[in-house]
Amino acid sequence: MKFDIIQTTPLYNALSEVGKKIYLPEGIFYWAGRAKKEAELIGTLGSAYGFEKDFIEGGNSDWLPCYLKEIANYSQFSVKEIIPYTSIGGLNEIRKVWKDWIIKKSLYGEEDESLLSRLTKYITMPVITGGVTNGIFQGCVMFLNQNDYIIMPNKRWGNYDNIINKFIRAKTRTFEFFNNSEMNINGIETAINEVAKIQDKVVILLNFPNNPTGYVPKKEEASNLIKMLKESQRTLEKPIIVLIDDAYEPYIYNNTVINKSIFYDLHQLDENIIPIKLDGITKELLIYGGRIGFITLGLKPSWVENEEELEKLKDEINNKLEGFIRATISNCNSFYQVVVNKLFQENSMEQIIKSRDKVKKLLKERYESINFELKKIKDPDISIDPNSGGFFVFVNLNPDKIKATVFADHLLNKYKVGIIPVEKLDENINGIRIAYCSIDLSKIPELVKRIDLALNDF
Amino acid sequence: MKFDIIQTTPLYNALSEVGKKIYLPEGIFYWAGRAKKEAELIGTLGSAYGFEKDFIEGGNSDWLPCYLKEIANYSQFSVKEIIPYTSIGGLNEIRKVWKDWIIKKSLYGEEDESLLSRLTKYITMPVITGGVTNGIFQGCVMFLNQNDYIIMPNKRWGNYDNIINKFIRAKTRTFEFFNNSEMNINGIETAINEVAKIQDKVVILLNFPNNPTGYVPKKEEASNLIKMLKESQRTLEKPIIVLIDDAYEPYIYNNTVINKSIFYDLHQLDENIIPIKLDGITKELLIYGGRIGFITLGLKPSWVENEEELEKLKDEINNKLEGFIRATISNCNSFYQVVVNKLFQENSMEQIIKSRDKVKKLLKERYESINFELKKIKDPDISIDPNSGGFFVFVNLNPDKIKATVFADHLLNKYKVGIIPVEKLDENINGIRIAYCSIDLSKIPELVKRIDLALNDF
Repeated sequence: MKFDIIQTTPLYNALSEVGKKIYLPEGIFYWAGRAKKEAELIGTLGSAYGFEKDFIEGGNSDWLPCYLKEIANYSQFSVKEIIPYTSIGGLNEIRKVWKDWIIKKSLYGEEDESLLSRLTKYITMPVITGGVTNGIFQGCVMFLNQNDYIIMPNKRWGNYDNIINKFIRAKTRTFEFFNNSEMNINGIETAINEVAKIQDKVVILLNFPNNPTGYVPKKEEASNLIKMLKESQRTLEKPIIVLIDDAYEPYIYNNTVINKSIFYDLHQLDENIIPIKLDGITKELLIYGGRIGFITLGLKPSWVENEEELEKLKDEINNKLEGFIRATISNCNSFYQVVVNKLFQENSMEQIIKSRDKVKKLLKERYESINFELKKIKDPDISIDPNSGGFFVFVNLNPDKIKATVFADHLLNKYKVGIIPVEKLDENINGIRIAYCSIDLSKIPELVKRIDLALNDF
Repeated sequence: MKFDIIQTTPLYNALSEVGKKIYLPEGIFYWAGRAKKEAELIGTLGSAYGFEKDFIEGGNSDWLPCYLKEIANYSQFSVKEIIPYTSIGGLNEIRKVWKDWIIKKSLYGEEDESLLSRLTKYITMPVITGGVTNGIFQGCVMFLNQNDYIIMPNKRWGNYDNIINKFIRAKTRTFEFFNNSEMNINGIETAINEVAKIQDKVVILLNFPNNPTGYVPKKEEASNLIKMLKESQRTLEKPIIVLIDDAYEPYIYNNTVINKSIFYDLHQLDENIIPIKLDGITKELLIYGGRIGFITLGLKPSWVENEEELEKLKDEINNKLEGFIRATISNCNSFYQVVVNKLFQENSMEQIIKSRDKVKKLLKERYESINFELKKIKDPDISIDPNSGGFFVFVNLNPDKIKATVFADHLLNKYKVGIIPVEKLDENINGIRIAYCSIDLSKIPELVKRIDLALNDF
């Protein structure tokens, strides 16, 4: 592969050294592919195959991947489905289904014809990653060299730091997430301007609904964010990569906030604000242990002259992403890919959403209850971060009065309530994350009551 | 975690910058662990849970991970087994089982009491990786910085180069694998001496049975290799890390070669030759799509003063390996971990081996047949690499007469036989890999006949 087209795009300039260098050598796949089509005798396939009767007592004459008889009954799927490798980028059927799912999630209807058409045409075919984490890992490695800066809110998933600081040894330029209970867009803007002074690209990592706060931007906040990004990109003339961690995407419980990923609006911009969607079945389809995620890039019409170039560009990006998967995990597990495939084959998207809505309803009730109960606490030393979705709420504690870890220890010892304290004073964080996703509605008032009692002890 | 002990070992000096820097922050796991034990109300668990009846029509009163009703019947396991995350290093039961399996595979019996005792005591608890590839990726990243050298044979799995050259951007110091149909131990020795001149550590990657050749060392070759490593390490006084890709470990068809991984003998050495075992269920249990591998380090008794230090060292290494998993894939898929767990719970290791022996017998017959047939070809322009195991044989072609890719194209076009050509003239490779693992015994004579015919055309 020549990577002719990608090299002409602003995407290429933003790639890290790994991103520039990685690709999937096609030799072995080229020959195996040709053999499949042209050969009578195939000696390319590196998995053991045989006639079932030759390795299973009572087996039949099917030519199958050799398997141990003991595991045949562990699933409803055939050994042909759960034993072999899937292709590197994932089962093609699921990749297509997930692209349709992304389009569905856009909520664009016929009245948004031009939006829908750009979305359908200019996003890449999702590549399957080993869970959302692996997608975030891939996104970060593809765009960050050692010592490069990435912009993130101070309140973020702790694992970002493992990936970015410890693994890549890149640097974080964090911004205070909130300013008067609204997203601190000025803070992001300042960070962008600073980073753009020392780098030829700006990389931002955002996550709505946010972990640990449950924050989702109000419609106006989102449109201000987008406006700011648009203007910044025009002024700075450097590509802005926005990695969008959409792990909690569907769990939004409030009508005043945006009801879909910011991926969609960013993708519609003509400016070189390049959104990369990182989502997966983990929370979205409630299959945590499945380790199936997706990485999808939003491309810009201005990058290509015609359809042919667009298809080439997609192939080149796909090759790089598959090269990354090949070098790190080879491919993703078969069982859960088949699960997703059957799920979408056997049910309409509406039916899947309907099933999930039962869980969403449960979570929404808990969300309402915990916010209601927390608001009752009249204590000037605490504040609750704005939250409208996801699995968590975050309660800030006054660091001059109560250190979060001390509070957590006391709450656990005296009141038998377990929460996660986050105490990162250098980033102005001192508070507790409450995972209401795993607390029954009936227990929430008691839980908050005990937190209130614990607060009174300080 | 303080990493007090590991810093005193030669292992630490050999770690890459990532290896030195990576660790698993314990905050969230510390609090979640305490909550599990001490709390009445738990708000730490970041997965959605509910009473089944609240999200599944006709559900019961069990407190379960919320799931979509559509996927409940896809496996024989309960939703509790296939929906949640496993722990970062993998299900503890399987990690223990796999350690026992590694001990079993050593073939040490009571007569080898001291060998068995060192093995049992001084290897780490295997950490579960996302397949063998992910283990190789982890092993390479943990020990190689950009521009570091790693020693490998010229004949090797192509994906090593994706990991090492493209991802890590480290350098390969390759050696000619064979010299007069024996392993070229002098070649490895020269490479070690050269690399030791410019690095404080030597990293070697070996794979027996080898992909693409099927080579396994004869007992004498293996003991010469070990002797050479031992003497080199004594002379150079630098740690030698040996990454051992044991993907094809059990598939050995010939009594004159070693019958177990070289991990075992290297681990018994007192010298700082540090073996790292990379294996998995992929080929060993014939579950390619399972993406479950293991990484296990062999430690040296001289590194620690007592049992307590040994346990601390193991904890520190485990923390680093889990930190790596957390940053790259978070954890491995649940279904296949449960499969492995059930497999070993419900069957003795002997029974599992017996089931697999049926497949091994099939492969051995094909191995014998293909070697027998290939030997019949009397052509001075080809030679067959020594092979005793694995899934492949490799036939070298005289590069002055026949280029491998040209030959493959001709073989496919005219004779409808598909094989994988490998043409890397700069590494003195020009030949074809035949995957007899996926060719029925009855077809092997015809396949080789066609290769012979194709050869005659040149």
